[in-house]
Amino acid sequence: MSRKIHLALHPYGVGGPGQHGLWKDPRVAKNASIDINYYIRQAQAAEHALFDALFIVDSQFINATYPAHYLNRLEPLTLLSAVATHTKHVGLVATASSTYNSPFNLARRFASLDHISGGRAGWNVVTSFDSGAARNFGLDEHLDYPTRYGRALEFVQVARGLWDSYEDDAFPADAERDVFLDPAKLHALNHAGEHLKVAGPLNISRSPQGQPVIFQAGVSEEGRDLAARVAEGIYAPGGSLQQAQDYYADIKRRTASYGRDPEHIKIFIHGSPVVAATDEAARRREREIFEEDDDFDGNLALLGRSFGAYDFSRHDLDAPFPDVAHLAEKGGRTGAARIIARAESEKLTLRQVVDSLREFRRSPFVGAPKTVADSIEEWFDAATFDGINLAFRTDEDVAAFVDGVVPILRERGLFRTEYESDTLRGNLGLPVPRNQFAREPQLADD
Amino acid sequence: MSRKIHLALHPYGVGGPGQHGLWKDPRVAKNASIDINYYIRQAQAAEHALFDALFIVDSQFINATYPAHYLNRLEPLTLLSAVATHTKHVGLVATASSTYNSPFNLARRFASLDHISGGRAGWNVVTSFDSGAARNFGLDEHLDYPTRYGRALEFVQVARGLWDSYEDDAFPADAERDVFLDPAKLHALNHAGEHLKVAGPLNISRSPQGQPVIFQAGVSEEGRDLAARVAEGIYAPGGSLQQAQDYYADIKRRTASYGRDPEHIKIFIHGSPVVAATDEAARRREREIFEEDDDFDGNLALLGRSFGAYDFSRHDLDAPFPDVAHLAEKGGRTGAARIIARAESEKLTLRQVVDSLREFRRSPFVGAPKTVADSIEEWFDAATFDGINLAFRTDEDVAAFVDGVVPILRERGLFRTEYESDTLRGNLGLPVPRNQFAREPQLADD
Repeated sequence: MSRKIHLALHPYGVGGPGQHGLWKDPRVAKNASIDINYYIRQAQAAEHALFDALFIVDSQFINATYPAHYLNRLEPLTLLSAVATHTKHVGLVATASSTYNSPFNLARRFASLDHISGGRAGWNVVTSFDSGAARNFGLDEHLDYPTRYGRALEFVQVARGLWDSYEDDAFPADAERDVFLDPAKLHALNHAGEHLKVAGPLNISRSPQGQPVIFQAGVSEEGRDLAARVAEGIYAPGGSLQQAQDYYADIKRRTASYGRDPEHIKIFIHGSPVVAATDEAARRREREIFEEDDDFDGNLALLGRSFGAYDFSRHDLDAPFPDVAHLAEKGGRTGAARIIARAESEKLTLRQVVDSLREFRRSPFVGAPKTVADSIEEWFDAATFDGINLAFRTDEDVAAFVDGVVPILRERGLFRTEYESDTLRGNLGLPVPRNQFAREPQLADD
Repeated sequence: MSRKIHLALHPYGVGGPGQHGLWKDPRVAKNASIDINYYIRQAQAAEHALFDALFIVDSQFINATYPAHYLNRLEPLTLLSAVATHTKHVGLVATASSTYNSPFNLARRFASLDHISGGRAGWNVVTSFDSGAARNFGLDEHLDYPTRYGRALEFVQVARGLWDSYEDDAFPADAERDVFLDPAKLHALNHAGEHLKVAGPLNISRSPQGQPVIFQAGVSEEGRDLAARVAEGIYAPGGSLQQAQDYYADIKRRTASYGRDPEHIKIFIHGSPVVAATDEAARRREREIFEEDDDFDGNLALLGRSFGAYDFSRHDLDAPFPDVAHLAEKGGRTGAARIIARAESEKLTLRQVVDSLREFRRSPFVGAPKTVADSIEEWFDAATFDGINLAFRTDEDVAAFVDGVVPILRERGLFRTEYESDTLRGNLGLPVPRNQFAREPQLADD
């Protein structure tokens, strides 16, 4: 069997980061981000196209400068539970913070989604990027980077322990013998670690896929290490083909170094394809989008987000990039630190930094269907990804990709012609994790 | 318009407290408590009968002696989000702990359910009864009673503040003027109280009913006080007609003493009606249930639950009730303390206490449809309740009540012939809370 591309859909409602003009498009409903029927339609479109998953991002802090979709949106697990019963095969990946949740509650909610969906739940583990989130959870300061990542690793390990509370045959439910539960198959975790203390057991059993699939978005050293240790899917940072190649190789190598099969971590790059009947029409549509999203103040606010919702409008736009190193979080090597390093090395003004953020978002997948399919194949063959996390603007843009590009990928044997499985794990080619408390060898084994 | 009875349905899957034998009934699916289709069917049956709400209880601690439904069940908000899109009118009340959640996350999840359901969310605020839950949330000891209730009050106030983050007209989404959000209509709460610190704003707007409806189950002095201050629905403790009358009068009086309209707090008693074609057949069915649930060890474990999952089997069953006062939580006047007081005053053995718990669960609503309707009317006229929270065993038992008793109540003008509203508030006759940040008077006003 040849390797296949995995595809996920990543709906952004009225407009995510940089999509400043999307809400003004008459084809986008003004309440899309809080309309469950919008998400159900997206999920059904993804399932109709045989995509692996619907991917829902999240955040826990806003102010009035935040992207439209962030201001007013549904909580991902609540959202995906509602979507679950309107779909049968597509995976349901919810972003949730390991910094601002408790493992018992969160593990339980993911297990519930996993049961409700018949084994299609995924958890995108984030440590919360917005430092302002701390003040929504009783803290004066954001936990520092190493603490957040240490907690994230321990959190995932605890969640997995809780998900294994019941062995698969824990409930004989045998009326004749009067045995509903076999108590020997129920296990308390009794975890006491550096960041977390959780006794268990969890009050819910495992689903058909054993455990929800763990996604992560590792960029920094800590992030890549966390991904290599526990992630089964990665939402990769993107960039040039070379950057994507390097990232891919690095993650696979790190994963192997932890004794894991590198095939058991699927790397998704971000893709915002622009597809039209001809290459020229696609480039025209790309320019149109570029102009729709042309909002300097919006991009200035977006830049501020990487520095704890800092207000950059107080600085001279045409002076050198201001000294805001004190705002980049200690111990972190993401977002803010990278922006500062680039501004220094390239001697950029504040205005140039803002404009460069915009440039960064241009997609390598622009053109007629065949052109886009060619680019995707090129990137795939270059070992830059296992899958693409696709973001579109309007339903028409989704359809242009699904009806135009997907059939070509399918013809080339690069994308499935039917779902391999009813579970997210099954479709991603991931093994069902063995229950850590089970004594006898089980059939499902990694 | 004459006063109408409100009805809620309270599904217990494979069997809640005392329903030891339910899972053995061949009409009950062994996986009912984790089967979303079971809950969707219950919700649709409730909606078909024009009930006000589906009511989902919860807990965060188990051991192997816990009731079957508790061992392995779906988390209530995840569950009700999935149910929401399969119903249009029935309210969706989820139990959630104010002790073991953070206000930002929980307020957001309820607001999401409220949007997904079009204004039908309710929150049953509990402070977590099982002392063992503490160890699932990083604590060595359960927070004491006054702390839990103090936190609960503050938590509800914070949640309400977060739910008001956006004024109703905060999103002009006016493409011509290029204004998606009117920033003056977004409000941070900046709460810093005795138990909680939460800045806000919340990243989701208000639903058609303004805010989710607050339910509570006040029994103790602290519980009743909390209910009178913030609850809009109460799940009452039950007991004899006289006890229910006293409770009802007390809550309405306390509510008025806080300057609130006593009509704006709806008191639901628990009801487990047993309905059959004739009174005799219903009594036969009641005896059958009584025998099905005859499980001394199960009741012994249930007794232990009130004392922090204490194992009473180590004591002599026929000696006087053991001295376990040290296990009854400090400052609490619920469960355990009431059991000890009764055992002392009536000089009961351990065995007698266990048997008395069982007796307590007998329903006043047993008989042919007309008999049950008569009893319900008698209790309603005696000012014992505004509504009944109905628990049944099998789908057939639901149908016997819905097809037999509800039409009689309807004929007598005691129950609605159509939904008054699309929102839970509307159907319960509760006002839409005014946004605490709005400057101008709004139409919806309490």
